[in-house]
Amino acid sequence: MTPQRGTQSEEAANSDSEDGSLNLSTDSRERGDTQKLAARLRQTRDLSQKLAEPLSPEDQTVQAMDDASPTKWHLAHTTWFFEEFILKDFLPDYKCLSPDYNYCFNSYYEAKGDRHPRASRGLLTRPSSDEVEQYRGHVDEALARLFDLGIPDETSSVADLVELGINHEQQHQELILTDILSLFARSPLYPAYRKSSATDCDGAETSAEAGRAENWIEYEGGIHEIGYTGDGFHYDNERPAHEVLLRPFKLRDHVVRNTEWVEFVGDGGYQNPNLWLADGWAFINQNDWSCPQYWQKRDGLWWQMTLGGNLPLEPAAPVTHINYYEADAFARWAGKRLPTEYEWEVASRHLPIEGNFLDRDVLKPRPVESTPTGELKQMFGDVWEWTSSPYNAYPGYRAPKGAVGEYNGKFMCSQFTLKGGSCVTPPGHIRRTYRNFFYPNQNWQFTGLRLADDFS
Amino acid sequence: MTPQRGTQSEEAANSDSEDGSLNLSTDSRERGDTQKLAARLRQTRDLSQKLAEPLSPEDQTVQAMDDASPTKWHLAHTTWFFEEFILKDFLPDYKCLSPDYNYCFNSYYEAKGDRHPRASRGLLTRPSSDEVEQYRGHVDEALARLFDLGIPDETSSVADLVELGINHEQQHQELILTDILSLFARSPLYPAYRKSSATDCDGAETSAEAGRAENWIEYEGGIHEIGYTGDGFHYDNERPAHEVLLRPFKLRDHVVRNTEWVEFVGDGGYQNPNLWLADGWAFINQNDWSCPQYWQKRDGLWWQMTLGGNLPLEPAAPVTHINYYEADAFARWAGKRLPTEYEWEVASRHLPIEGNFLDRDVLKPRPVESTPTGELKQMFGDVWEWTSSPYNAYPGYRAPKGAVGEYNGKFMCSQFTLKGGSCVTPPGHIRRTYRNFFYPNQNWQFTGLRLADDFS
Amino acid sequence: MTPQRGTQSEEAANSDSEDGSLNLSTDSRERGDTQKLAARLRQTRDLSQKLAEPLSPEDQTVQAMDDASPTKWHLAHTTWFFEEFILKDFLPDYKCLSPDYNYCFNSYYEAKGDRHPRASRGLLTRPSSDEVEQYRGHVDEALARLFDLGIPDETSSVADLVELGINHEQQHQELILTDILSLFARSPLYPAYRKSSATDCDGAETSAEAGRAENWIEYEGGIHEIGYTGDGFHYDNERPAHEVLLRPFKLRDHVVRNTEWVEFVGDGGYQNPNLWLADGWAFINQNDWSCPQYWQKRDGLWWQMTLGGNLPLEPAAPVTHINYYEADAFARWAGKRLPTEYEWEVASRHLPIEGNFLDRDVLKPRPVESTPTGELKQMFGDVWEWTSSPYNAYPGYRAPKGAVGEYNGKFMCSQFTLKGGSCVTPPGHIRRTYRNFFYPNQNWQFTGLRLADDFS
Amino acid sequence: MTPQRGTQSEEAANSDSEDGSLNLSTDSRERGDTQKLAARLRQTRDLSQKLAEPLSPEDQTVQAMDDASPTKWHLAHTTWFFEEFILKDFLPDYKCLSPDYNYCFNSYYEAKGDRHPRASRGLLTRPSSDEVEQYRGHVDEALARLFDLGIPDETSSVADLVELGINHEQQHQELILTDILSLFARSPLYPAYRKSSATDCDGAETSAEAGRAENWIEYEGGIHEIGYTGDGFHYDNERPAHEVLLRPFKLRDHVVRNTEWVEFVGDGGYQNPNLWLADGWAFINQNDWSCPQYWQKRDGLWWQMTLGGNLPLEPAAPVTHINYYEADAFARWAGKRLPTEYEWEVASRHLPIEGNFLDRDVLKPRPVESTPTGELKQMFGDVWEWTSSPYNAYPGYRAPKGAVGEYNGKFMCSQFTLKGGSCVTPPGHIRRTYRNFFYPNQNWQFTGLRLADDFS
Repeated sequence: MTPQRGTQSEEAANSDSEDGSLNLSTDSRERGDTQKLAARLRQTRDLSQKLAEPLSPEDQTVQAMDDASPTKWHLAHTTWFFEEFILKDFLPDYKCLSPDYNYCFNSYYEAKGDRHPRASRGLLTRPSSDEVEQYRGHVDEALARLFDLGIPDETSSVADLVELGINHEQQHQELILTDILSLFARSPLYPAYRKSSATDCDGAETSAEAGRAENWIEYEGGIHEIGYTGDGFHYDNERPAHEVLLRPFKLRDHVVRNTEWVEFVGDGGYQNPNLWLADGWAFINQNDWSCPQYWQKRDGLWWQMTLGGNLPLEPAAPVTHINYYEADAFARWAGKRLPTEYEWEVASRHLPIEGNFLDRDVLKPRPVESTPTGELKQMFGDVWEWTSSPYNAYPGYRAPKGAVGEYNGKFMCSQFTLKGGSCVTPPGHIRRTYRNFFYPNQNWQFTGLRLADDFS
Repeated sequence: MTPQRGTQSEEAANSDSEDGSLNLSTDSRERGDTQKLAARLRQTRDLSQKLAEPLSPEDQTVQAMDDASPTKWHLAHTTWFFEEFILKDFLPDYKCLSPDYNYCFNSYYEAKGDRHPRASRGLLTRPSSDEVEQYRGHVDEALARLFDLGIPDETSSVADLVELGINHEQQHQELILTDILSLFARSPLYPAYRKSSATDCDGAETSAEAGRAENWIEYEGGIHEIGYTGDGFHYDNERPAHEVLLRPFKLRDHVVRNTEWVEFVGDGGYQNPNLWLADGWAFINQNDWSCPQYWQKRDGLWWQMTLGGNLPLEPAAPVTHINYYEADAFARWAGKRLPTEYEWEVASRHLPIEGNFLDRDVLKPRPVESTPTGELKQMFGDVWEWTSSPYNAYPGYRAPKGAVGEYNGKFMCSQFTLKGGSCVTPPGHIRRTYRNFFYPNQNWQFTGLRLADDFS
Repeated sequence: MTPQRGTQSEEAANSDSEDGSLNLSTDSRERGDTQKLAARLRQTRDLSQKLAEPLSPEDQTVQAMDDASPTKWHLAHTTWFFEEFILKDFLPDYKCLSPDYNYCFNSYYEAKGDRHPRASRGLLTRPSSDEVEQYRGHVDEALARLFDLGIPDETSSVADLVELGINHEQQHQELILTDILSLFARSPLYPAYRKSSATDCDGAETSAEAGRAENWIEYEGGIHEIGYTGDGFHYDNERPAHEVLLRPFKLRDHVVRNTEWVEFVGDGGYQNPNLWLADGWAFINQNDWSCPQYWQKRDGLWWQMTLGGNLPLEPAAPVTHINYYEADAFARWAGKRLPTEYEWEVASRHLPIEGNFLDRDVLKPRPVESTPTGELKQMFGDVWEWTSSPYNAYPGYRAPKGAVGEYNGKFMCSQFTLKGGSCVTPPGHIRRTYRNFFYPNQNWQFTGLRLADDFS
Repeated sequence: MTPQRGTQSEEAANSDSEDGSLNLSTDSRERGDTQKLAARLRQTRDLSQKLAEPLSPEDQTVQAMDDASPTKWHLAHTTWFFEEFILKDFLPDYKCLSPDYNYCFNSYYEAKGDRHPRASRGLLTRPSSDEVEQYRGHVDEALARLFDLGIPDETSSVADLVELGINHEQQHQELILTDILSLFARSPLYPAYRKSSATDCDGAETSAEAGRAENWIEYEGGIHEIGYTGDGFHYDNERPAHEVLLRPFKLRDHVVRNTEWVEFVGDGGYQNPNLWLADGWAFINQNDWSCPQYWQKRDGLWWQMTLGGNLPLEPAAPVTHINYYEADAFARWAGKRLPTEYEWEVASRHLPIEGNFLDRDVLKPRPVESTPTGELKQMFGDVWEWTSSPYNAYPGYRAPKGAVGEYNGKFMCSQFTLKGGSCVTPPGHIRRTYRNFFYPNQNWQFTGLRLADDFS
């Protein structure tokens, strides 16, 4: 469950507590080790700062579209989250740095009062980047003090809230990168977040050839358990775990690659109404789309705007920044379909949660080439995979009470579930049962697809 | 599956033929009796004319909003359907009455060429009502001729297409009434489609009192078969039949009534963000809603715009003309939830398909009072019941090829399924497996809700 | 001064009474002859009915755009005007036909209470055309009764108000025709208000050739008196008469003709930003204009939608249905300029007010061909001529008090003055000093231009 | 003639050359002294930098609305102007710093190629503030070099272009301040561009009392010459000088003050449709205005957002940031009217061009209190005064050819003329004949009004 962007949200939440009380699900015995938690908190807070490093104060301030937020706002909002949900309640004598920040940096919590309009976040030239950095320091110092005081047993929920704050900040780390890309993509200078070296794309052409093979992995039907069953951290929308009945299905071993998408474009994919959902056909025509939005054709060659700047399209890399309508149309063109979120989760069951995630050094965040091998690959990392499952409540789900109840439940309408994380998802953030969700027209995340089909 | 109105469609379609060929599903042996089919065709065509009778040429021409179409357009479009899909192909020497009508009266079939923009249907003052009546006569006469010629065995698909045309026209009959209501609701004169007599509302107050009881019917969980399995007419989106795994659940015996909704309004239901989906909260605030859209409060009393004119709200009648956001918020306020489409279908299994449908005399189309009795009532007729199920493809579904393939499949995105038909659904049109669908913001149909809950 | 359409108005008004009291300017001695007034009233009322004759009830009901109103609404509104401003105040025991009509048929008089929104006039399918005809009869009968009672001297303002009502209705007669053309122009059937006979266009080609000559009429500069100075009927915006200082100028003998505009289009006139006002350039690009809006090119030939249907463009006829931006760009392309309203008025001084106005039989309302002759022609009738004068207040102007004060004064902003009347202006309605006004983007009237230049 | 903002422009231009050649109007003999010109150039360039000093890189980058531009963009655009119009043509071997800047920093010159969309100027986080400063240095150095080379007689037009560049940059200096105010006014922190000291407002209350007197200055009617007749720098729209015929009139000695506007608001000025132009009434209702846009009422007291931050309203200071609709409504409420631009110009004839302009130290830019004295005061500086004159071409005006011809002429439509300059107009920039212009809905400049009336 990732930050919302449609028109309202950015949060994530927690709790398997079906009674709605705020009792987060990490196991209390293991959690005893608050030192580890403190270390992870520091690492997470540091990574956010590191992500902002290549960006000028100007870059950090501007908002390219309503769905995206400025870097500076992300840095301040994640800080406000710790202040508002933890420090105010649990650190004696905690003093807010500024009375204005609650108004400026609340995202969408109705329960937390009025707030600056989402679409105007880019107007906040004040507080400055420096002041936001001071704000982060102020809160980090207070959090350290809280840990020093020791978290007594009876307030074990503090540890749960810190865990939630870490996961919340990780979600915003992903957004910092996708939102800055949405800004740079509209600049006539095509700035790079980080310059790629010349050799980054080596071998792309070669492996494109290798990619012609169609390898499918088959899966049994029957009753499968879906949803989170462990006792670690997870979001409320991954619960209750429940059984679903599936028919036999198969998945492609690799995600759809740029080379395939070029074929789709060349075959008139964006001009053929029979391939599109009615909403999608209306959308691409109103917006005059004829290829993915970060692509441009120059002198017969395709280029793609990336975090490394505007670069020649890598044929073997996964297609990304496509919306649901596009994913669905491509699948229909290919004579296949998208997997359901259940199929995806079942197929992922025995895979390690490893892949091309955001690395700690934030060197070159981009999806890496995808080579058909006959084995299920790239389920985690690289690109979020659109599923055909509308994002909704699992049977028996009730939103938790209070502000944390505003995290996931209120977005269960008109969006689709995505699985697996992307090249800008912080490592350790993702789970098999993790459910991301976006509106079918949204495309500024690292979103791609994997083909599925029936199998009988 | 009723005509779409979101931005694009009005059709329904056919065929269990999973291979996509146009072989409709009515059983060929019974179908042999073409005389019965001809009789049903005549009845259907007559009913449409009857529905238009209380309306002046002006009433029949104007379009109150993009989602609705003028009566005259419905009368002509259903006629064009027979011309385009049957007469042109199967009646030797058939001559179109006017070369312009294909452009004017195609709804959304990309495969059938350019067409008049949906939002401009209300600008078609020509052809006149009289000319549309002539057009209907011209096509009816040709259809009669086709039947007289005898439908040879090898063109049994003609009978299928006639069946489809009948069902298609029935859908538009419902729309004729809901669309004219949307027009009259915007008139300062509050015209009645048909005047109600003074005694129509008798006894409403009394039975409202009786309604306090909360009666629930319980259902077993387990594996259930969903979707159409017979060999009669049905739409493609009701197939393939497939198994789903349900948890135990219960349904209220009656649909939610106006008296309950008055309580919801009085309790600040439209002012409490915690009750609403984020999209719903944004929607009602942007549009300044604080009650169902056909309601107004005057001198402390509630009135409702109906096909009988603007009348005092009937407390015991089902609430209607609410959208998905409202239905969902009400259920949350009541501490319950909406049923899934599967639960609804399972619960309806042993009920006769009887209820308050559009009667042949079109006397007083309105939902009738709903009295809690402890037995499952009003599942069919009165009001379409919103379910929590996003409208999507059943496993294994593929849209049929050709123009009929544009009926249902291309709308499987961002809409919700409704079940059971309404007081303006023609009798004989509905099935247990029938799936209607609308966007969550749409409310101009006779749409209501029934509460569900878990049961363990 | 014609009805406004921008976003608000349709009226005209009266009165030279600079003190704001309602004492209309017709001379009271001549006016004594109330029989003549009664006769003119009847003629005017009859003409409106006659204008509606070729139109079906459907045609009379629909509104193609916010600026235009339905025929039926014009028929009712002009009737309401007599009821509201005269009958209610001066006819003892007058009874309104319906209490709803004040709400339905008030146009924009804030002083007369709430009213039906302008953009929703096309939703008024009720009252029907027949009921509106009854309403007209009811009011006509009452007006006749008022005249029968005799208008006593002390209520001579009644005669002034009748005169105002006549002029007001004449303005709406013009609108009935231009508004129905705006509707028919959006119909795929291109209906004719009245069919033209085949020979209507005879000779057009020939005279186009004759039109190459550029004849200019020269006028002296100096101090000229502008504005109405007589004692007949006129509108408040034609007063106070005042002096202006003009430089020598010259006018073309004929208005710009289609053949010249074809040349302008062919010369890339709509593609050259240097020819356009910045607002105009933005407007034509946003709306994708490349020729006048009622023109279409088919197989290399130009056609024009007219009240006679869609017809081959007449080369020698005046260009019409162009907006101010287009007129201004054309003049710049031609190396000339538009005249000021003062220049136009001075030039018209010795001409009889004769021309191609709406004839009583309403046979073929259209601008007739324009032949260069060396004499000033077509100043009156055919097409309204755009001037370069922003429509504003004459020095010393103050709007009259009360509802009539809402006629002209409140529109003195962002519009331009037009002079001379058109082929659908009722005869007797126009004056040299008459000031019509429209926004620079509006083009649905019969609007054209005449070139002017400096002369030294 | 100031930069346009409506939807398109920011420029000003020059030249009395009615033949359209670029021969600026400064007298060539005096101009011989290029050293003085070089000094003024340096002062102007320095002042722009000084204006940006209190602003962070973030403040300089963001755009609060389409009409406004970021500080950084102003700094770069004025620099591009010198590069594009002078250095490229006249400095041998001049090298552009970046090939992208022509695209980024062209404002609206169609003749100068494609350009970054106006509404997206706020997305240009790159080039950074530092890079823009380097760009300014690069161009300043080149300009110095150009002066060192000596400007030969035959390229005396270079001096004219430098003069134009200075005036152009002065216009943008005004915009830097008004645009930053429009940004800060939307911040929840109400930042001050420069903090006012506590004593700034001293005496305001006192002088408000003194302001009750109504003093009028009377002026003769007759023929007056209007427009620029000298041989110094001026814009093309100030020419040709020409005679106009005026009636006797009178002007108030002081501009309308906040205390009067408070009375207007208190008297229901914003709720009375009779006071407003129809467009104005629609505008304030659509936007929900009930006072000037930089005002807010808190606990019964009025505050105003200013360049000094959000401060208590100064009663005796001129009202400012009002649009034409408001000015016009106020005048009607007061029973007076706005002056024409001709009246204003005639009245200003014998006044020195002195007043509260932007001072070189940019300390506290704000309108100062206005005290009725019986003498004509504050005609120059403090606030631009709306006139009732639509901004249009003087008789005989033709726009110059080439890019400079795009400065003033193409905006002569739908705007009104303002006179006199404001507290943020650089000294030396204004003339009696100077014509500024804005759309009637625009209010983010320092715009106020002075009452006029007839006099007989």
